[in-house]
Amino acid sequence: MTDIEIAKAVELKHINTIAEKIGINPDQLEHYGKFKAKLPLDLINETKASKSKLILVSAISPTPAGEGKTTISIGLNEGLNKLGKSSVVVLREPSLGPVFGIKGGATGGGKSQVLPMEDINLHFTGDFSAIEKAHNLLAAIIDNNIQSKTNNLNIDARTVKWKRVLDVNDRALRQVIVGLGGTTMGVPRETGFDITAASELMAILCLCNNLSDLKDRLGKIFIGFTYDKTPIYAKDLKAQGAMATLLKDAIKPNLVQSIEGNPAIIHGGPFANIAQGTNTVLATKMGMSLADYTVTEAGFGFDLGGEKFLDIKCQSANLKPEVIVLTATIRALKYHGGAALNELETPSPKALKKGLPNLEKHLENALKFNITPIIAINQFTSDTAEEIEIIQEFAKAKGIKAAIANVWADGGNGAIELATEVIKTLENTSSSDFKALYNWDQPVLDKVEVIAKSIYGGSSVDYSAKAKADLKRIENLGLSHLPICMAKTQKSLSDDESRRGRPDNFILNVREIEIAAGAGFLIPITGKMMRMPGLPAHPASENIDIDDQGNISGLF
Amino acid sequence: MTDIEIAKAVELKHINTIAEKIGINPDQLEHYGKFKAKLPLDLINETKASKSKLILVSAISPTPAGEGKTTISIGLNEGLNKLGKSSVVVLREPSLGPVFGIKGGATGGGKSQVLPMEDINLHFTGDFSAIEKAHNLLAAIIDNNIQSKTNNLNIDARTVKWKRVLDVNDRALRQVIVGLGGTTMGVPRETGFDITAASELMAILCLCNNLSDLKDRLGKIFIGFTYDKTPIYAKDLKAQGAMATLLKDAIKPNLVQSIEGNPAIIHGGPFANIAQGTNTVLATKMGMSLADYTVTEAGFGFDLGGEKFLDIKCQSANLKPEVIVLTATIRALKYHGGAALNELETPSPKALKKGLPNLEKHLENALKFNITPIIAINQFTSDTAEEIEIIQEFAKAKGIKAAIANVWADGGNGAIELATEVIKTLENTSSSDFKALYNWDQPVLDKVEVIAKSIYGGSSVDYSAKAKADLKRIENLGLSHLPICMAKTQKSLSDDESRRGRPDNFILNVREIEIAAGAGFLIPITGKMMRMPGLPAHPASENIDIDDQGNISGLF
Repeated sequence: MTDIEIAKAVELKHINTIAEKIGINPDQLEHYGKFKAKLPLDLINETKASKSKLILVSAISPTPAGEGKTTISIGLNEGLNKLGKSSVVVLREPSLGPVFGIKGGATGGGKSQVLPMEDINLHFTGDFSAIEKAHNLLAAIIDNNIQSKTNNLNIDARTVKWKRVLDVNDRALRQVIVGLGGTTMGVPRETGFDITAASELMAILCLCNNLSDLKDRLGKIFIGFTYDKTPIYAKDLKAQGAMATLLKDAIKPNLVQSIEGNPAIIHGGPFANIAQGTNTVLATKMGMSLADYTVTEAGFGFDLGGEKFLDIKCQSANLKPEVIVLTATIRALKYHGGAALNELETPSPKALKKGLPNLEKHLENALKFNITPIIAINQFTSDTAEEIEIIQEFAKAKGIKAAIANVWADGGNGAIELATEVIKTLENTSSSDFKALYNWDQPVLDKVEVIAKSIYGGSSVDYSAKAKADLKRIENLGLSHLPICMAKTQKSLSDDESRRGRPDNFILNVREIEIAAGAGFLIPITGKMMRMPGLPAHPASENIDIDDQGNISGLF
Repeated sequence: MTDIEIAKAVELKHINTIAEKIGINPDQLEHYGKFKAKLPLDLINETKASKSKLILVSAISPTPAGEGKTTISIGLNEGLNKLGKSSVVVLREPSLGPVFGIKGGATGGGKSQVLPMEDINLHFTGDFSAIEKAHNLLAAIIDNNIQSKTNNLNIDARTVKWKRVLDVNDRALRQVIVGLGGTTMGVPRETGFDITAASELMAILCLCNNLSDLKDRLGKIFIGFTYDKTPIYAKDLKAQGAMATLLKDAIKPNLVQSIEGNPAIIHGGPFANIAQGTNTVLATKMGMSLADYTVTEAGFGFDLGGEKFLDIKCQSANLKPEVIVLTATIRALKYHGGAALNELETPSPKALKKGLPNLEKHLENALKFNITPIIAINQFTSDTAEEIEIIQEFAKAKGIKAAIANVWADGGNGAIELATEVIKTLENTSSSDFKALYNWDQPVLDKVEVIAKSIYGGSSVDYSAKAKADLKRIENLGLSHLPICMAKTQKSLSDDESRRGRPDNFILNVREIEIAAGAGFLIPITGKMMRMPGLPAHPASENIDIDDQGNISGLF
């Protein structure tokens, strides 16, 4: 059975029932149909939130074999609920681009899914669209200001950093020239489109604490310079009020349910390779206000999502996770050990052993934040007893717990061992254990270096001429105190996606550094990283269909 | 009080109450919060619909003075309900672009508004976003196919007609070059962006009869040619299934309420100057299935929205309106008579008389469809008794009823006279009276000519070289049987926006002819018409704001 077939076979509970389970009066919900609802921000209770145990799920470096970080997060929450705990899972919203491209949806898999999967994977409650519209409104206001004779800030069109965004994998929009057609049509200039998940507005939505903080951050967005070198921000264009108005509903977290009828909060959807990669602060705090345990995920490998979660989000919002679940699969570790994609079903203790250093590095990284990691082995039918034994021996030697999780096939029942380990670990930890990797106040070069060396395992950082000019600009703008949000391939600990396992002795190449003054971080773009994906030769869209009764097929 | 202040002062009824008023079980609704809901298509009942009286509200040629066609439509529905009739108003959804530009919202005004106005004017239930995403997915698939080595239809990039769309007034996107950056980034080509309301997908959504018809029309969208001159359609790219999937919710009409708590169905939002300008067929049929009277509007002046409503939508969906309400204001007629914008508060029987021929022409046009027109004089405080008398005398001489409607200030109470006239007229009409202006099977040139001469009052039609080449292509593609959807300025009966009143002896200049093979019409683009608006020097966005409690200001 495919994911969508499994999902369709579930009889969904009304969202009111799910809400009541975590003490929400259904009257407080803003319904989007029977199975989705927005949660008002006044349900957030900082005192209650500070007592909830925050569990961060991350993973080894992802491979085409699949790791299932979201699936593990959902399954772990089912397991905790099965053990009688009050627990909520808090996740990111999927981006439409990859749904029609190559990656497919992002709502878990098998018996560990959030539902209704087709709605969550498509428009959901419109949050991405709202971000896209607010982002592109600012772009239109900028070009309009450049064009206008009577309301003109003297912006030098060549310095404008603000691009446009669309939630579609459309490589032809990466580099464009706009404003063609003559004097009535605009001022021609080079610019481009990023995918919506990479929008600074997505980052702002994910980091803001309330509507007023949102508006404040929107106003601080850096646009470019005037001809006399004065920096221009969104507030200079009086754009932040209209933009915040467009985000009035998007700021509210969304409530849905898992296959086993447990509450799931889904909100915000930045990618961890090109953005900060974790759901909104408001959703995390919402989850923590409503349950004793809050399971959340940080995108892609721990080197990207995990590091950013801890250094940016946790420092920004004063969150303190107490355990890190590191998702690994035997298939993926074999791939890291050099096995080819078509060999992953074949038992290969040798390839597995060769791939273990990738897991080892992510475990070491977790410990650098003084948080206990637990390995979750996301089980596949092709895994052999010998292979499982190898990982368990490896974990034992390191003094780290490893739990087999069969959540794809068994849902919560498949996560009992993992959930039990998590509960046990939490009994021996404290939220005061957490310490960040760096202080925001350190120099930019130091912050980048500590991530590159300590987390990625590189030997040094190389800055292009453009990146050096960007550094100078950051200093001039007084933004050196901002934390670092790396844009790096998720496929390798290095910036070269072909280097699997645990690469060493590599240089991290910083091509340029984008400024996200509103979100409040700097984005070194490394290697060949693109902030607008492309479609594969045969996009997933070719197989997606809907019949006359509205039944969707081909979503996975 | 501003419109948003009036709107916010209303205590809204739960949408369940509104639904029950027209016999809908609340359980059948898909709620979007407490005050908006989508209606399932199975509520459409063709037999019941065929017995409902369809009332078309249109207007004289619009002026900066404001005519209030939507306000009259909403007020008339309030009036009919006040008179104890079962009546529903069916309207278009506002486009975000103009909300942040110059026009403001499109939810009526004063005491005749649909609510919640701020939600309807912003993202509403996401229909525009869904159209935008499905449209831009097709664009990405096209450029991806051109770029791909292994899945390539040999499309000649120079012939691709499919642009992208955004729901923002962004003139810098009218003409762009995409695909820059080298071999991995795409194939450079000229293209552009239209506003979402002008998307062929909006037209398709508005004309389709069900999900299967929607998908069929999506597949028929014309893209361009291969290098060996074979036409390429969306179905050749296997795009229609994914596009229809994205529109699965957008296809369902939306239910909201008016200030007086009467049902309003709002669905689809094409502009009448650049598209067909009327709400969806499904919404009209939904309204007609649920009430004895269905009030609907056709955008801008009757020459644009009215003609397209009758010749395209009514012929396509077998709808037969029985009365046309022509909205006029004394202010606007004075403007048509040559008065300056700042003189409209000053009584001027002379300017009014000079402006009446604009109204006269629209009345004559209505009669060409064998439908009885009624004049609705949308009252302003500056109107004098003498000026009102002049219109009434004018109407009397023509044998046409004219009713004063004070719906802005008084809501339904201000529409009693108008509603009474409408009911009286309907008692003497039959749905079999309606006859279209032309048959779809006539040659393209004839169809364009009959609109240009008979409706606009022009003397002839001039085709540019490009338009002539387009005509040839339409013939070669076997699409000559499609009806005509003119793109023409709304500000004049001619294609020159500076010619107010009733211009004559003019040539209609057809610049090019776009093909909307999926929607099923041809779009002659006349004069200087643009399908992507720009922002004014000081966009409305500068005054839009939201406070910490989520209260919006500056929307109008």
